[in-house]
This record gives sequence, structure tokens and C-alpha cells, in this order.
Amino acid sequence: MPKIDLSKVPVKTGSSYPAPYAARMGDRAWQELGDAGGLTQFGASMMIMPPGSVSSMRHWHTGEDEFVMITQGKLVLVQDEGETIVKPGDCVAFPAGDTNGHHFINRSASEARFLVIGTRAKKDTCTYSDVDMKIELVNGKGKYTRKDGSAMPTPSTEETK
Amino acid sequence: MPKIDLSKVPVKTGSSYPAPYAARMGDRAWQELGDAGGLTQFGASMMIMPPGSVSSMRHWHTGEDEFVMITQGKLVLVQDEGETIVKPGDCVAFPAGDTNGHHFINRSASEARFLVIGTRAKKDTCTYSDVDMKIELVNGKGKYTRKDGSAMPTPSTEETK
Repeated sequence: MPKIDLSKVPVKTGSSYPAPYAARMGDRAWQELGDAGGLTQFGASMMIMPPGSVSSMRHWHTGEDEFVMITQGKLVLVQDEGETIVKPGDCVAFPAGDTNGHHFINRSASEARFLVIGTRAKKDTCTYSDVDMKIELVNGKGKYTRKDGSAMPTPSTEETK
Repeated sequence: MPKIDLSKVPVKTGSSYPAPYAARMGDRAWQELGDAGGLTQFGASMMIMPPGSVSSMRHWHTGEDEFVMITQGKLVLVQDEGETIVKPGDCVAFPAGDTNGHHFINRSASEARFLVIGTRAKKDTCTYSDVDMKIELVNGKGKYTRKDGSAMPTPSTEETK
């Protein structure tokens, strides 16, 4: 494959989370670089984090490894043990099955960015650490539920610019 | 997992290639960041490329997606169609099954670096585009052979500092 033309990769915005969680993400956006390059086994996305944005609800996966490298700006990584400041070149790994949920918050006044890689597992449960929500994937498809499996509304505000 | 302490991740050197190919790699080295962070589903390595070094023999995989982001310096990406200069922030994807082999050469006078992600497939064949060599992995283990499957010597010069 040729070098990926980053200027041509769609910038996605919004969130697939049910209310009230979608609105908490702020204006974070992302480019799905792996998909743009024809990859299917893992996702590779550039997360674009303006001031005040949040990467995701804090979460962990049963079936998917994740790896992050910060590429621009300053972010706060939140895990069970508290907060860690991360900067360009810093790397963090989140192994499948590690119950220590994570997310990133931009509390600075400048845009930050990070590259995130995540396996595309056929079977996975993503559990949200701080709220009553989970998502179970079977054959790559799933929907948000309460942790007891009961239904939640599932509006999606995801858009592609 | 906490942020990976890059200063504590072993720097590996050498090559597992049989002669005469191992010597062609120059002094390139790498840090296995994904392993350091407890990941098992894909490898995530920082390749450290001094002037004159070569990342690998030009190759392609039947079973493993690869993704590269340049993080420092200037490198030459070589594929079937020729050479492409790549610089920090540039990303390239190499989907499993794409027969267009790739490698990176540092022809500059300064160190270059790139992050490379590769699936850990249980079954994979890596074919070397420009020489009579391949490696077949079954359950994650394999050995270098000629393309017709006949034996090659398999000395390894890999070291961990």
C-alpha cells in the first residue's frame, strides 16, 4: 500500500454512547487510519483531542489488547490508581483482561493527539468502569446494555465529515 | 498498566536472518513496547534506525497486518513500485495478503525511528521479495527456508542489551 494520505482520511465525530454519556466526550474526533490502509485485524486510529475533550468513557476489554502512543500535546490518563500526565512519545498498553479501566482527558489549552491500536476481536466485552454500562461483541457486533444485561437506549451521534 | 518506562525496555540488536542477510541490516535496533506492556495479540515495537541501517529484508505476510508510523528522521520506504520518502507523522499500512513487499532504509545522516505494529498470527507465511527465502509460522513458531521449502542455515545474532 502507498503511504496513507492523511488529508483524505475522513474525520469522524460524535459518539455511539447512549445519553447522557455521548455528550461528555466533548469535541473529540478521530481518523481511522488502519481502515484507510486496508487493515482488518486491528484498528489504528488518530484521536484528535481539542481542549476539554475526553477520549471515551473509562473502560476495559476482556478480549482486545490496546496500545497508545501520544503524538501531540498533553493529556491526562485516568486509571484506577489515579491520574498520570502523558506527553508526545509516551506509550501505554492496556492488555485484554486487565480490569484497570482507562481513558484520556485533555485539560490543557491546546489540541492533543494520540495514535491508538486495538485488536478487532470477534468476541469481547467492554466494561465501563465508572457507570452502569457495558457492550458485548459477538462476531464483531454488539449493543450497549446495563451491566445486568438490561436494555439502554442506543442513540448514535457519530458523523463523518 | 502504568505508562511504559521506555528507559527500562530492553534494546534488542542483531538479526535472526541466515547469512548473508543478517549483516545487511546494519546497526538497527528495537524496543518491544507491546511485550513490555503485557500485550499478546499484536507486537508494538519502536525501531531505532541509525544512518545506513535497513529495517528488514523486503517482505510481505500472508496472515499478519502491519502498520507503521514514522516518529523521527527521514526514511526511504521501498515497495514494488519504487521508493517513497517518509517523515514523522507519515503512516503506512501493509495488509495481510498484499504481495507488495516493503522495508525501510535510512539513507540520511541522522537517526530515524518508527513505531511498527504487527498482528501475532498463529499461522503466517512471510515471503522475502528480493531473495530466495521465506518463513512459515505454525502456532507462532517457524524457521527460514528457501522458497521451495529446502533448508537454510539459521544462525541468529539477536542480542538484548
